[in-house]
Amino acid sequence: MKSSEEWMELALHLAESTIGQTSPNPSVGAVVVKDGELVGVGTHLKAGEAHAEVHAIAQAGEKAEGADVYVTLEPCAHYGKTPPCAELLVQSKVKKVFIGCLDPNPKVAGKGVAILEEADIEVETGVCEQQALRINQHFFHFHQKKRPFVTLKAAMTLDGKTATVTGDSKWITSEQAREDVHKQRHQHDAILVGKNTVKHDNPKLTTRLPEGGKNPIRIILDTHLSLADGDYHIFNQDASTWIVCAEHADRAAFQKQYPHVRVLSLPLESIDIAEVLFMLNEEKIQSIYVEGGASIHQSFLQKKLVDACHWYIAPKLIGGQNAQSVIGGQSPEWMSEAHDLTFVSVEQLGPDIKLIAIPKEEA
Amino acid sequence: MKSSEEWMELALHLAESTIGQTSPNPSVGAVVVKDGELVGVGTHLKAGEAHAEVHAIAQAGEKAEGADVYVTLEPCAHYGKTPPCAELLVQSKVKKVFIGCLDPNPKVAGKGVAILEEADIEVETGVCEQQALRINQHFFHFHQKKRPFVTLKAAMTLDGKTATVTGDSKWITSEQAREDVHKQRHQHDAILVGKNTVKHDNPKLTTRLPEGGKNPIRIILDTHLSLADGDYHIFNQDASTWIVCAEHADRAAFQKQYPHVRVLSLPLESIDIAEVLFMLNEEKIQSIYVEGGASIHQSFLQKKLVDACHWYIAPKLIGGQNAQSVIGGQSPEWMSEAHDLTFVSVEQLGPDIKLIAIPKEEA
Repeated sequence: MKSSEEWMELALHLAESTIGQTSPNPSVGAVVVKDGELVGVGTHLKAGEAHAEVHAIAQAGEKAEGADVYVTLEPCAHYGKTPPCAELLVQSKVKKVFIGCLDPNPKVAGKGVAILEEADIEVETGVCEQQALRINQHFFHFHQKKRPFVTLKAAMTLDGKTATVTGDSKWITSEQAREDVHKQRHQHDAILVGKNTVKHDNPKLTTRLPEGGKNPIRIILDTHLSLADGDYHIFNQDASTWIVCAEHADRAAFQKQYPHVRVLSLPLESIDIAEVLFMLNEEKIQSIYVEGGASIHQSFLQKKLVDACHWYIAPKLIGGQNAQSVIGGQSPEWMSEAHDLTFVSVEQLGPDIKLIAIPKEEA
Repeated sequence: MKSSEEWMELALHLAESTIGQTSPNPSVGAVVVKDGELVGVGTHLKAGEAHAEVHAIAQAGEKAEGADVYVTLEPCAHYGKTPPCAELLVQSKVKKVFIGCLDPNPKVAGKGVAILEEADIEVETGVCEQQALRINQHFFHFHQKKRPFVTLKAAMTLDGKTATVTGDSKWITSEQAREDVHKQRHQHDAILVGKNTVKHDNPKLTTRLPEGGKNPIRIILDTHLSLADGDYHIFNQDASTWIVCAEHADRAAFQKQYPHVRVLSLPLESIDIAEVLFMLNEEKIQSIYVEGGASIHQSFLQKKLVDACHWYIAPKLIGGQNAQSVIGGQSPEWMSEAHDLTFVSVEQLGPDIKLIAIPKEEA
């Protein structure tokens, strides 16, 4: 006989397995249990398709009556592309619903629970809540803060360097660390870099995992559209590419050359990170994976627009004040001006260490 | 009934508890067991005093006859300040001796085992060998490589910085990390810094733990004896201070001013790290804890004279290429010239992370 936490863990495992593929919808898993036995499972696979509860209840069939349902996120109460799941559960005459976490979306929050309770269905919320919240942290952040969740990613040596003085950086981290980066790309709506990273490294910025994966939108900050004359991988059609420029840039000429690339022109003389995030929010981009370089990282930090730092540290020392530091720009005068973070995860990836830190005030 | 590994773990725990206080001798623990019961324990406390086996056998008394003895390091076979422990075990008529690791000192290696086996005492070596070797890694390294074990220590932000552009560095790491640094000072024979660290930070370089601790010798590299005019903590008499200078420095004037400070003058125009280690080897310094600054770290790295890196990483980002990097000097041109290490330990200390890395070829 499994405990309610154990059934919820199965539902969470289902939800977790779809991170990256459901945006702009959240990842959700559902499990139906009758007399201690599993009778239905479901997970939401793609925006526009059936919700997790619909799949799980369909599989359970008549056994849904009197059953316990475990769902990682509060069942929806509104008519969107599908009818409300809370009503489906009522119609199916389930006995009790265990919920991982409530939906912070004001269109939904608490309303699903209300529908269930009005129909005299028992409800227990907050089962494995922290795990349930973490699965959809990008989605929740986007709806609560009205801007994408921003992850800064860096791969550096133990002395905080990303390249030698000549710019040589291949390779700092191991294959295992680089594979983890591709997993992160899969889980984000967009990837963002500065034009210098494109000019210097000519990256593909696609998700390359042995078993496939979703390509995020490639967003390049290029004030003057100075990449126009180069033959870069980001201009291929393996994934969508959006270029952000300032108002004076010659957008028409660029679009003629690269008609399949989307150009987002800011009504400003230079690129302001806060404005970029505002625009991406309008475009329903829920999460951005910022892969540098050093001055792009510094811009996000300065505006305090960082939600997580994913740091891959290789067991190497380059040495040299003049090797390329992981964060660019100018040092502040005092240590008290440093950005305070909190470590939330430490992981060994092959020979490297991955540290995740979040802003201290968020911890 | 405890297993032989469990009894050896007790002996190791005893040995470990004396790290830092037995130099130039190794740390050793011994346990005597008769019919499954503990009948004697001992540990070597201080060079010149009784060895671990002597204490343990004395406590066992007549019960030593026919007993099992667990000793973390091969019993000695030579007449030093005390008679050989291997002969003591023979005279005590013990039945079997379990040994953690053999002594790499050629005066001893294998000779203790030979004495025991000649007397028909059963011997089993290599019990918890890795732990046993780790406890005396400074001692073993010193005798095998004929130079002190060198640990580089750094406390840096997540972007690899030890201070802002103005030199402000107080405090990067937490109290918990700083307490760990004091534990390391206790475990090393000497602490080494460059003159700039003294001028800039005026550190005490003593061991300040709530429960006390041993002060390492403070070694300062100061080519021109330029510290002579300053009123620095390192010139107090809380601990021994040795100043290393080049041949042209005015040693006589300095000694007149600070008669209690030892001046080691190298017969060279400038300070060479390899020569410093050669000289410290002659002085029987088995371990050095190098606390910087950036250019001292770089000198040790360049000469490939680093045996371990203890890195304390604070969850902070200073930002700025011009903030002080953890390793100074000039960057190499290519990543392939970076120093390759292997991470051997990851630990959370309060809000900070401590990483230990050793040279890849040693791993």
